[in-house]
Amino acid sequence: MTLIKHLQAPDEFTGFYLIKELEIKQTNTTPAKDFMDIVLCDASGQVSAKMWDVSAADKETFFPMTLVKVQGLVQLYRERLQVKIGKIRKALPEDGVQITDFIRSAPISPADLIHTINGVLASITNPTIQSIVSFCVAKVGDKLDHYPAAKTHHHAYFAGLAYHIVRMLELGEFVCKQRPFLNADLIKAGIILHDIAKPEEMIAQLGIVSDYSVQGKLLGHISMASNWITEAALHLGLDLQSDLVIGLQHIVLSHHNLPEWGSPVLPQLPEAVALHYIDSMDAKLQMVEDTLLITPESESWTPMIRGLENKAMYRLKL
Amino acid sequence: MTLIKHLQAPDEFTGFYLIKELEIKQTNTTPAKDFMDIVLCDASGQVSAKMWDVSAADKETFFPMTLVKVQGLVQLYRERLQVKIGKIRKALPEDGVQITDFIRSAPISPADLIHTINGVLASITNPTIQSIVSFCVAKVGDKLDHYPAAKTHHHAYFAGLAYHIVRMLELGEFVCKQRPFLNADLIKAGIILHDIAKPEEMIAQLGIVSDYSVQGKLLGHISMASNWITEAALHLGLDLQSDLVIGLQHIVLSHHNLPEWGSPVLPQLPEAVALHYIDSMDAKLQMVEDTLLITPESESWTPMIRGLENKAMYRLKL
Amino acid sequence: MTLIKHLQAPDEFTGFYLIKELEIKQTNTTPAKDFMDIVLCDASGQVSAKMWDVSAADKETFFPMTLVKVQGLVQLYRERLQVKIGKIRKALPEDGVQITDFIRSAPISPADLIHTINGVLASITNPTIQSIVSFCVAKVGDKLDHYPAAKTHHHAYFAGLAYHIVRMLELGEFVCKQRPFLNADLIKAGIILHDIAKPEEMIAQLGIVSDYSVQGKLLGHISMASNWITEAALHLGLDLQSDLVIGLQHIVLSHHNLPEWGSPVLPQLPEAVALHYIDSMDAKLQMVEDTLLITPESESWTPMIRGLENKAMYRLKL
Amino acid sequence: MTLIKHLQAPDEFTGFYLIKELEIKQTNTTPAKDFMDIVLCDASGQVSAKMWDVSAADKETFFPMTLVKVQGLVQLYRERLQVKIGKIRKALPEDGVQITDFIRSAPISPADLIHTINGVLASITNPTIQSIVSFCVAKVGDKLDHYPAAKTHHHAYFAGLAYHIVRMLELGEFVCKQRPFLNADLIKAGIILHDIAKPEEMIAQLGIVSDYSVQGKLLGHISMASNWITEAALHLGLDLQSDLVIGLQHIVLSHHNLPEWGSPVLPQLPEAVALHYIDSMDAKLQMVEDTLLITPESESWTPMIRGLENKAMYRLKL
Amino acid sequence: MTLIKHLQAPDEFTGFYLIKELEIKQTNTTPAKDFMDIVLCDASGQVSAKMWDVSAADKETFFPMTLVKVQGLVQLYRERLQVKIGKIRKALPEDGVQITDFIRSAPISPADLIHTINGVLASITNPTIQSIVSFCVAKVGDKLDHYPAAKTHHHAYFAGLAYHIVRMLELGEFVCKQRPFLNADLIKAGIILHDIAKPEEMIAQLGIVSDYSVQGKLLGHISMASNWITEAALHLGLDLQSDLVIGLQHIVLSHHNLPEWGSPVLPQLPEAVALHYIDSMDAKLQMVEDTLLITPESESWTPMIRGLENKAMYRLKL
Amino acid sequence: MTLIKHLQAPDEFTGFYLIKELEIKQTNTTPAKDFMDIVLCDASGQVSAKMWDVSAADKETFFPMTLVKVQGLVQLYRERLQVKIGKIRKALPEDGVQITDFIRSAPISPADLIHTINGVLASITNPTIQSIVSFCVAKVGDKLDHYPAAKTHHHAYFAGLAYHIVRMLELGEFVCKQRPFLNADLIKAGIILHDIAKPEEMIAQLGIVSDYSVQGKLLGHISMASNWITEAALHLGLDLQSDLVIGLQHIVLSHHNLPEWGSPVLPQLPEAVALHYIDSMDAKLQMVEDTLLITPESESWTPMIRGLENKAMYRLKL
Repeated sequence: MTLIKHLQAPDEFTGFYLIKELEIKQTNTTPAKDFMDIVLCDASGQVSAKMWDVSAADKETFFPMTLVKVQGLVQLYRERLQVKIGKIRKALPEDGVQITDFIRSAPISPADLIHTINGVLASITNPTIQSIVSFCVAKVGDKLDHYPAAKTHHHAYFAGLAYHIVRMLELGEFVCKQRPFLNADLIKAGIILHDIAKPEEMIAQLGIVSDYSVQGKLLGHISMASNWITEAALHLGLDLQSDLVIGLQHIVLSHHNLPEWGSPVLPQLPEAVALHYIDSMDAKLQMVEDTLLITPESESWTPMIRGLENKAMYRLKL
Repeated sequence: MTLIKHLQAPDEFTGFYLIKELEIKQTNTTPAKDFMDIVLCDASGQVSAKMWDVSAADKETFFPMTLVKVQGLVQLYRERLQVKIGKIRKALPEDGVQITDFIRSAPISPADLIHTINGVLASITNPTIQSIVSFCVAKVGDKLDHYPAAKTHHHAYFAGLAYHIVRMLELGEFVCKQRPFLNADLIKAGIILHDIAKPEEMIAQLGIVSDYSVQGKLLGHISMASNWITEAALHLGLDLQSDLVIGLQHIVLSHHNLPEWGSPVLPQLPEAVALHYIDSMDAKLQMVEDTLLITPESESWTPMIRGLENKAMYRLKL
Repeated sequence: MTLIKHLQAPDEFTGFYLIKELEIKQTNTTPAKDFMDIVLCDASGQVSAKMWDVSAADKETFFPMTLVKVQGLVQLYRERLQVKIGKIRKALPEDGVQITDFIRSAPISPADLIHTINGVLASITNPTIQSIVSFCVAKVGDKLDHYPAAKTHHHAYFAGLAYHIVRMLELGEFVCKQRPFLNADLIKAGIILHDIAKPEEMIAQLGIVSDYSVQGKLLGHISMASNWITEAALHLGLDLQSDLVIGLQHIVLSHHNLPEWGSPVLPQLPEAVALHYIDSMDAKLQMVEDTLLITPESESWTPMIRGLENKAMYRLKL
Repeated sequence: MTLIKHLQAPDEFTGFYLIKELEIKQTNTTPAKDFMDIVLCDASGQVSAKMWDVSAADKETFFPMTLVKVQGLVQLYRERLQVKIGKIRKALPEDGVQITDFIRSAPISPADLIHTINGVLASITNPTIQSIVSFCVAKVGDKLDHYPAAKTHHHAYFAGLAYHIVRMLELGEFVCKQRPFLNADLIKAGIILHDIAKPEEMIAQLGIVSDYSVQGKLLGHISMASNWITEAALHLGLDLQSDLVIGLQHIVLSHHNLPEWGSPVLPQLPEAVALHYIDSMDAKLQMVEDTLLITPESESWTPMIRGLENKAMYRLKL
Repeated sequence: MTLIKHLQAPDEFTGFYLIKELEIKQTNTTPAKDFMDIVLCDASGQVSAKMWDVSAADKETFFPMTLVKVQGLVQLYRERLQVKIGKIRKALPEDGVQITDFIRSAPISPADLIHTINGVLASITNPTIQSIVSFCVAKVGDKLDHYPAAKTHHHAYFAGLAYHIVRMLELGEFVCKQRPFLNADLIKAGIILHDIAKPEEMIAQLGIVSDYSVQGKLLGHISMASNWITEAALHLGLDLQSDLVIGLQHIVLSHHNLPEWGSPVLPQLPEAVALHYIDSMDAKLQMVEDTLLITPESESWTPMIRGLENKAMYRLKL
Repeated sequence: MTLIKHLQAPDEFTGFYLIKELEIKQTNTTPAKDFMDIVLCDASGQVSAKMWDVSAADKETFFPMTLVKVQGLVQLYRERLQVKIGKIRKALPEDGVQITDFIRSAPISPADLIHTINGVLASITNPTIQSIVSFCVAKVGDKLDHYPAAKTHHHAYFAGLAYHIVRMLELGEFVCKQRPFLNADLIKAGIILHDIAKPEEMIAQLGIVSDYSVQGKLLGHISMASNWITEAALHLGLDLQSDLVIGLQHIVLSHHNLPEWGSPVLPQLPEAVALHYIDSMDAKLQMVEDTLLITPESESWTPMIRGLENKAMYRLKL
């Protein structure tokens, strides 16, 4: 079985892959014939592929997100690799492959991530705060265990959001120990809530965001989460003007820090300041870590990282 | 009765005024004696005043926002006018003066403004939109009939908010006629809702904002109004994810147009674009109109206007 | 007759179109042969076309902006539609087609637009202002009845400039009624003059700007219009330092409001402030209206609109 | 005779000074008495002064810009120096003092500056360019020999504008020699014209700008100079659309380089680029030179210079 | 003994204080008499004081930074508190007071801070990195144990710099554990070196910065530290072009992240990215913590914090 | 011999050219065959070329930067010119061609440029300044005689850096004469040192920069030059804190003027201010001059110039 990043022209190869994109097109010949224009992927990368003889049955069998076994030939076309598919069939249960083997995902399993989040949730001592957070976690449902945290910037993979939350919770725990004037309940709640509406802001499959939802575009995850807290408070019979409700909404609304980064208010609670820096540090260091991971050891410089002012990282030789 | 803007040293005068500020202080003498450090105002301006012999009864009688009859002497102190109060008493019913005579206020009476707003509200044809707007108008209560629209920028006087809404409704009606692709219900709703949370964002008395409320600072009137729509929708049993609810929230959230002006999302509905420009035009032209009004006819240039890039207006002589 | 937006491969079709671009090229064969590389357009869109056998007579017959009758075949070439021209001839008077049927243009006829503008011009009560405006309108000549208002941003079509002026005059009339402190003569003059030099700033044909003129690039329409007012004033024997002349120049110079938007001075007359907002509102709402028009009803989102911070508009489903 | 910068409390002194400001005020006593609140200046600085016994004749004798002989006493009032005037009389012809001895002015005499400018003007080889420049120089008249170049930023003293032009002409001559592709006529014309309208933009006396004129505020010197070139061209019967006229206007319009610095167009002629950098270099280096001059040799650091990002200059000890 | 923050007019009081400022001035009387204009401070605040009868001996005894015992009377002068000093003497050894009792300082003793820093320095495993850091630490000498970290922004008190380093080292240790791809030696070195030149950039006494040094202004602490690393490398005989030397210089140069914040290069090493966020988080949270500390418990809002976009913090009531 | 800019399809031609790029590729045929994908250049431009039959010997003979004699045929491929190589051989000594004939280079020979620089260096009167500059000039070695001054912005050709220095020295000499308060030694030193580290910041061959070096990216030429001065000072036994050393470092560090242009400190020495404007003027006017040179005389407008806000220059017709 050959990883996509190891394919080279003119290899012949066999392996299991995921169909990421698939379109039925017609050749420029007379008479025109159907062919399938496909993008295959695995966890190591993706490649364009063509299947030239397409039966009516094929059209009913192969779709995006189908796991397939492929036998093919690697060719060069306009200086890029392209696979000419010889044989293709759907993966069978007995093949023992599963979809998460073929996509980029967090290094910790969704189950473990959710377990950690639930543990922290249970440790919130203020019952009202705990109830509001629980309400919002319930509202996002099982999307929390597999959604990415963003379209491109950071944690843009399967379970990226939960992974981001878990690492932030670790950092938040340290910061609360180092600076006891911070209210640990608010830090925990802020970390869990700050991006909680992202799964409703974006439309994603297998960790890849294809678009933003209508409410994602018209409201944005920051205002959506603020609305969810209103909803939770009404559901729990709380005073919408209490410091607790307003405080949680503030922490969520201000976590991007500056208006030009999307926050309608600047942080004005100690925990809101802390949350912003916990969020930034985790997001930026994860970008660095993930970029280093996909850069071959032999390369001194990584690709440029958009979220870090488009700068590449250098591997220092000490 | 002498208007404050006509006072000159060393006039003696009598008149009715409003106590805008009052503080009991002590003289620097031995023994120290109590005196009242007062700011008197009427619709024409304000002046500092001192009352040197203060009885215990006086301290129980005079407070900020008391209407008083004053007999005094105008003096110069450090090149500024200052009133030495000779006699002072509370205004009596038979004096026939009322507080709104002494403060800056909109040129249309609150009752008429509210009447107009209610009329437009009643003309909204979509019953769901009408219900949401009614809910929010009810929530802000009678503050709508006297609150200013801002602390300093524009319409910063008694009933300024209602006046701003009414002029915008006139402009909105014209724009909807000129461009029928705009949904008049959404325009009307957007105009009434866009600043509806301002009376809860600010703390004002008689048209003058003294401070912002805690939720004003931590959430801001834009996010507050969005929360109110959530509340209204839950109260009315509406789907929070319906286009109607999201659309109204979007129009409110985006009405400042750019993130650096406080909007977490940019306008993405035709009516949201229109609302922003209706709001801007009304606010800016009102700044110009109000500044011209307070500038003596003999002056070619008005004072600088903060909301217009700190520029003064010139009276062209044609 | 087939609209271009309805063409699909492999249609055969006949229809009238406008030649928007035409270049004589040579095939890559031996011996090389001449062919015509053409862009055909109608009001619904444009398409690339090739005519492979080109006679010497053809080269003398067909040029850009020629109206033609075409019989052709639609093909796919590198995933884009391309027409292979079978037959082509110039349109004849008896065909009853005219050039404005094939281009994007304002929804009101040029004659009606000019009629409205002239009516408003005649209604200016100050004879000196009227004379200056008339001089400038005469100077731009009949370009006023067909020039677009911009290269891409807004009103970028046949008679777009006159249309922009007319809608602004409507809005200006309303604003002067709502706020009588504004001088209606100055508003009318400002609206007609603000973009009056655009037809000399840009080089356009049939509503499409191909480039900017030398003086367009070196001076810009704002300074050009200011110079025109100087010219008018000298022609009319007016004092160049009179408030009237300076005032009109100021209104034109400041109408982009901020230096970074091209205005060397900020608005400092009430009418200059008003003009800026009337101009902005009309331009922005027209962008929205025009974009909605070209977006199929079936699409929820329009294309992105450059002049609105690159945002798309959403069709709310109420 | 004592320079103002050498006055110290409690000196008695006698000297000639210029009355820069003078106001008749009244004491706070009963009965109030008139006194004169004066600012005296010489080339070394200025000081506040009071004259307590004021006769009716005095009020008819002393005005701002009067040269006077003063005998006085230096006192400290609220930690600042203040002169108590003992005797004061107008300067007489036999005193041999003249107003320019008491104000800050360019280090070259106005006559010499004008002589140099006229010499360069005569050396312009293109007669049309020469005529346009002459027209504008004549238009500004004898204000050119004494006006400052700015209110505060640079060359803010008597004959500062002419001095700025002359130093720029020297630099321009060098640059044209070093880079012969530049047209020397355009460089000379650009240097003389770029700030030619400043004396009509500002209201100044003795090198000190008290305010901007109405056209200075509403048009600005850049657009004013562009209008003057239009006027010159019409006067000379030139084609307003000729490259020569447009080119000169462009050089003037673009000399501030960026819109946010006041230029409606960016430089698009080689000479326009050169002019901007000649202007900047002269203005910035003059700020440095003038600031060093007024800083005592004993000080390592000059005061902060606004036009240089508010930075102070350091005197390096080599 | 009375803390300054508890003084109220008209208290009589006795206590030990530090003379922060002292100037000999003369009264406005005839004859003028010397008096001492003093600012007294303790750890709780500062107050203006006057001593009216000053002997020649007094002038030789009292100077800024003298610890004194004062008996005085609190008065109100122009609405501010002012102490009239009755008796004053220098503090004696037997009084048992010491200067650090009277100034704001880090909550950990300098000795403990230095001990921690030395411990971390000793734990750096790469001997070359350790040597470079040791060289720079030795170069700054004992200023490291008492200098503040900044003039106003954060850690602006006695031993503030060492305290900032120690808290960052704690956070850095956590981050290295959480993200093992980071090189702990580089993180430790970066934290110790990033502000190491600050004591040579600023002139401070007792934790209060009075000015910047010449090299502080002309080079800045970032370039100074880069130069120090060059010096260390030459001293240690290292290759100036080795990755190790360049890497350490890069981490220092880039730690302000963006050019507009003072860094000539953007972070391009994983450890440089981490250092920037560790530095920011520590500085910002310390600002919050210190501001909360000086805000009375009874106040809901702290003063505005300059380094946090001028926002105040709110004490949430949960 | 045919210049590349004169090639037209379907010419046959012979000439000498430089191989700028060369890659061995394989045809898409069966069996695949090697061919050489080449970019040929001369001083007039560059063109893509293919050599289809490639022997093993050829692969050992032809490399980038080889001078070759080529006989070829010009063809059109996808609307761009492409050379089909018929014959190719290496240039021989007897051909009398040399590499600098084929690349863009400064209009003055490297030897003359270096001679001028050395002359100015020798004229520096302060021996310490002279020694520091000599040390840095020696450090950069013979790269100074051929390196470009930048990758794309200005002087991006063979010996561009030395040429930039020489023209700046001419301008600097003039400015020092015009303004004697400037220290000529510092101006000379600043001009020679300001970009002295560029040859170590960039990797260039024949005047073309292919990339930045590791230290170029991690430190930048500004900080590198500052380090070099430290090195020079230590080598010469100078006090690193002396005004002379700090002053030279300051002039280098501040020469980009603003942080966002790469300078960590703003100019605070008169000579630092002067250097910035000398540098800017030379760089900008050279961009204009070089762009005019490569624009055919028949074109009114040059290509857009990135370093001049992306504006094109116009050739005025006087």
